Amino acid sequence: MDERLQKQLAFALEIDKEKGIFRQTHLAGHGRNENDAEHAWHMAIMAYLLREYANEDVDIAHVMLMCLIHDVVEIDAGDTYAYDAEGIKTQAAREEAAKQRIFGLLPEDQASELMALFEEFEAYKTPESRFAHAMDNVQPLMLNAANGGGDWAEHGVSAEQVYGRQRKTALGSQRLFDEVVDPVIKDHIARGNIRP
Amino acid sequence: MDERLQKQLAFALEIDKEKGIFRQTHLAGHGRNENDAEHAWHMAIMAYLLREYANEDVDIAHVMLMCLIHDVVEIDAGDTYAYDAEGIKTQAAREEAAKQRIFGLLPEDQASELMALFEEFEAYKTPESRFAHAMDNVQPLMLNAANGGGDWAEHGVSAEQVYGRQRKTALGSQRLFDEVVDPVIKDHIARGNIRP
Repeated sequence: MDERLQKQLAFALEIDKEKGIFRQTHLAGHGRNENDAEHAWHMAIMAYLLREYANEDVDIAHVMLMCLIHDVVEIDAGDTYAYDAEGIKTQAAREEAAKQRIFGLLPEDQASELMALFEEFEAYKTPESRFAHAMDNVQPLMLNAANGGGDWAEHGVSAEQVYGRQRKTALGSQRLFDEVVDPVIKDHIARGNIRP
Repeated sequence: MDERLQKQLAFALEIDKEKGIFRQTHLAGHGRNENDAEHAWHMAIMAYLLREYANEDVDIAHVMLMCLIHDVVEIDAGDTYAYDAEGIKTQAAREEAAKQRIFGLLPEDQASELMALFEEFEAYKTPESRFAHAMDNVQPLMLNAANGGGDWAEHGVSAEQVYGRQRKTALGSQRLFDEVVDPVIKDHIARGNIRP
């Protein structure tokens, strides 16, 4: 087998580990914690179906690929909960090392391409990255709402924290923020699952 | 919230169930059984990275979306193991009913689009569907090989059965068949994991 294909398959096998990186979000129906691979799959399909609500025109294939690979670094860096202030301080450094190692398994051209895609996601500067982030926020909000807001209640999350994260959803999709995110947050503040 | 968005979110929530549909394949490292959402995520990324080996030019965004949604029907129809001759007899009817119900949750235009995409995958007639099928075969072969061929041995699968399925991989990618699939099968026949 030639070296290029060997490297591609080594990467493909390595990312299998993403199925063992668990998030704080629970599957609907009060299920188990969700893993990163499932979350990425779900986000990519939602991006495709909800693309009409993006604030700006997006290259949807680019958004989907970004959704699919955005958590690969967590194989080494672990999942950092959105409201874990301590973890967030070291997140960038941990993810940078992981990015080099994991994408570095690929042939150089593909390693560079996927590292750039990950960096684009992190930088929030393109319409595609903003819409991918909106999906990264709306997907767990949808599951959490379906479970009666248990994930927020369990972690004692405040309205300020939830809005701090979810206001960025509006940068990718004002309509999803206005019609989905904001009403759900208000509802769960009223129900006592999110601290006012 | 308008009716269209409500329908889109109802579908998005429904497909969360795909994370609970387990396959015969095991995660690498002799892990647990893999679920459909994880498998679809893995296939879509592999399709993108290995697209240079497709026999024909493919619209890779189309292939990726096909990979992501091709197992949605299994929420109702269950996973049918590739070598379960009895299950395969009723698979088409079970999946047809599931297709109508699950994609039918979407607004009409998107329901039609995703049903057509699923039908295209099943029909094996376009370059995109043939390459998506190659990924559907290569991804579990890779995991199974990483686990020492345990899934084949457990089910007493024969070379005839494995080749019957994997020869179709060559319709999507002759190179992946020649350089990955065929050597792996021959190796596992020699090691006694696949019956000759």
